Amino acid sequence: MKTLIILAHPNLKNSLANKTIINELIESDLDIEIRNISELYPDFNINVNAEQEALVKADNIVFQFPFYWYNMPSILKQWFDAVFEYQFAYGSEGDKLKGKNFIPSFTVGGSIESYTFSGYNNFPVTDFTKNLEQTSNFAQMHYTKPIFENSMVYLEGIYNVKEEIIERARKQAKRVLKHLLYLQTKSKDKKGTVCT
Amino acid sequence: MKTLIILAHPNLKNSLANKTIINELIESDLDIEIRNISELYPDFNINVNAEQEALVKADNIVFQFPFYWYNMPSILKQWFDAVFEYQFAYGSEGDKLKGKNFIPSFTVGGSIESYTFSGYNNFPVTDFTKNLEQTSNFAQMHYTKPIFENSMVYLEGIYNVKEEIIERARKQAKRVLKHLLYLQTKSKDKKGTVCT
Repeated sequence: MKTLIILAHPNLKNSLANKTIINELIESDLDIEIRNISELYPDFNINVNAEQEALVKADNIVFQFPFYWYNMPSILKQWFDAVFEYQFAYGSEGDKLKGKNFIPSFTVGGSIESYTFSGYNNFPVTDFTKNLEQTSNFAQMHYTKPIFENSMVYLEGIYNVKEEIIERARKQAKRVLKHLLYLQTKSKDKKGTVCT
Repeated sequence: MKTLIILAHPNLKNSLANKTIINELIESDLDIEIRNISELYPDFNINVNAEQEALVKADNIVFQFPFYWYNMPSILKQWFDAVFEYQFAYGSEGDKLKGKNFIPSFTVGGSIESYTFSGYNNFPVTDFTKNLEQTSNFAQMHYTKPIFENSMVYLEGIYNVKEEIIERARKQAKRVLKHLLYLQTKSKDKKGTVCT
């Protein structure tokens, strides 16, 4: 199975969590392509054909990003607005993404406790990701429950401990890889089934 | 009361619903400033100071946009990511938006029926706007329940009737203006109250 990672981080060079996750994913033996869309499109001028071609070739699409203002960063929204076109992602002939796996993997700054009805973020994290879920539905993709870790913001001496963030980032990467392996096994099982 | 409208439409010239709404709002007697951020920032390079200055002067902030992929268009997300800075919108000194009214007003393509648990959009519209609500909360603003109308996509001969969209757009503009008038009256009432 081919996995495409759409990486959306406006400042990966200075990132701790997302950079660690990506480095872990690169080192796996799986067939993974990474498209760093913040780097590819600093002017937000998305090459729709190139993105659609990469999507068509893949079985799994992982969206890797930091949670900004309770959703995806603007470059990723721009990507969806441009790439998920009529007659590509939806419409009478828009079945080019049908059956592919849609896998959100993001890093959340706030703590688990803050994302509760009594916490300062008021809602559980997945209350903020219904737009991802329904985008996946509308494109006839298979939605995976988001893979994320909390407390992923690092401000030296103020917020969180560097080593602990790296540890959580590695844990998150492992969860993504485990899920990709599960999908691969499931896919092989399916192909091996003979319907009589 | 001063009202700032952050207008985010990538193609207002060819818009029917949003253009009608904006034209109706312009014609009112209220103190309204419109910032067309798609036109101001075609390269997504937001002038943060100019936007923050406009925000500080306003009492009500209306966000006017078409619903794209179950959320705001990318230019508006870019605006939030850039403008709602630490120590401006949040943080120990980040109270510059405190008490201002946060008013989402957007146009939804799908029908009311589609936005139900048994419809093809699977969720009610306001299940997709928790990120707006919590962004408002986090900036200590007063959140207004979104003002929107459904079936606002026009494709000649295919989807919807032009005159009916214009009618719904006018209705939506009236609802926004009615709400702004209500806020104005409420504000005057408050100022007139003497606590003894």
